Amino acid sequence: MDAVKVIEIKKSVYESNDREADKLRAELKAKGIFLLNLMSSPGSGKTTTLKSVINKLKSEYRIGVMEADIDSDVDALTIARETGVKSIQLHTGGMCHLDAGMTRQGLDELIDSDIDFAILENVGNLVCPAEFDTGATKNAMILSVPEGHDKPLKYPLMFSICDLVLINKIDVMPYFDFDMEACKKNILMRNPKATIIPICAKTGEGIDEFANWLREEISKNR
Amino acid sequence: MDAVKVIEIKKSVYESNDREADKLRAELKAKGIFLLNLMSSPGSGKTTTLKSVINKLKSEYRIGVMEADIDSDVDALTIARETGVKSIQLHTGGMCHLDAGMTRQGLDELIDSDIDFAILENVGNLVCPAEFDTGATKNAMILSVPEGHDKPLKYPLMFSICDLVLINKIDVMPYFDFDMEACKKNILMRNPKATIIPICAKTGEGIDEFANWLREEISKNR
Repeated sequence: MDAVKVIEIKKSVYESNDREADKLRAELKAKGIFLLNLMSSPGSGKTTTLKSVINKLKSEYRIGVMEADIDSDVDALTIARETGVKSIQLHTGGMCHLDAGMTRQGLDELIDSDIDFAILENVGNLVCPAEFDTGATKNAMILSVPEGHDKPLKYPLMFSICDLVLINKIDVMPYFDFDMEACKKNILMRNPKATIIPICAKTGEGIDEFANWLREEISKNR
Repeated sequence: MDAVKVIEIKKSVYESNDREADKLRAELKAKGIFLLNLMSSPGSGKTTTLKSVINKLKSEYRIGVMEADIDSDVDALTIARETGVKSIQLHTGGMCHLDAGMTRQGLDELIDSDIDFAILENVGNLVCPAEFDTGATKNAMILSVPEGHDKPLKYPLMFSICDLVLINKIDVMPYFDFDMEACKKNILMRNPKATIIPICAKTGEGIDEFANWLREEISKNR
């Protein structure tokens, strides 16, 4: 369990990322694979949240995780050790986002393992990943309480493209000037269709609701 | 005080950003202007930190602040209202970073006000801003406790180019699994010359030390 595969992904050569993303999405659907693209700022709790929800779902689905980072393999190791599911590390070579071609390079490694639920943990960044469709079935993001409720005002595109917004670290709300109602209002201003779930990945609060959202979306995709 | 100037900055046309940045740095030095480029993840506390340190230094220097964001003018308004110094908002039009040409567009507005200490609050992003020299005299960044002590492992370039790393939100250390010694070790692994100052922008802890670092760097630049 102490070694995970590290893939140095290469810059995509496709002229139209949107076309490539639609193609990948259709291929995945045909194969019965649901792909979740999870995005957030650095340190919002993507890996801890994934650990929690994977441990709830791993008996129901064959799960595989791609951890994208510029460097290090700490996240893929954490997922492998603490959930036991297949986990690979994608190194982006300094790049600030993943596009559909890069996501495909990771999936090619994962799909060998006969999975039906793939998760991409994107590079920690609220700007660039929002601009590149990865081909995922659904986009989700985490906003954590310490970051502040004003973030939808400053990073409009990210909030507008996500089907699901998890508000993480609600256990520390008493220590921060965070207004949950203002936060929800700001998110819905950017994206009236967004599902919003307050969670605490560390204590498990809200993770059942996140797992139920995933079950429903996976079943819709079949 | 309720209105701040908002500048829609344009993409730079310069072929070599490094050359343009060196040129801007030399021009600023000749004019006796110190430019600080402050970077961090979204929500690490850049604006609150600036508010605190500006209130300590505004009687000694003629300060001007450029707040870069993709959208909104909340940060420039906050600085203007709570410190009284000249503050302008730069809208990056979706761009994830500022380069030297974009910084110059903002400075052209500020310098009219006869300033000697300019501050650029860069876009909240640990990846792309590290790749573009803004022409600043010094680079500083904030890592906040809730983000975790492993961030220098994942965002190597940002930590390696910063002269100063502020570790913010130390008041909430008891509520997070944050190892200060491991964090310092990780930062120094990326950049053995970095100055590291733990702070709490909200309570003011460490802000005197940050102000002293600035005084020293400003005097060295004269």
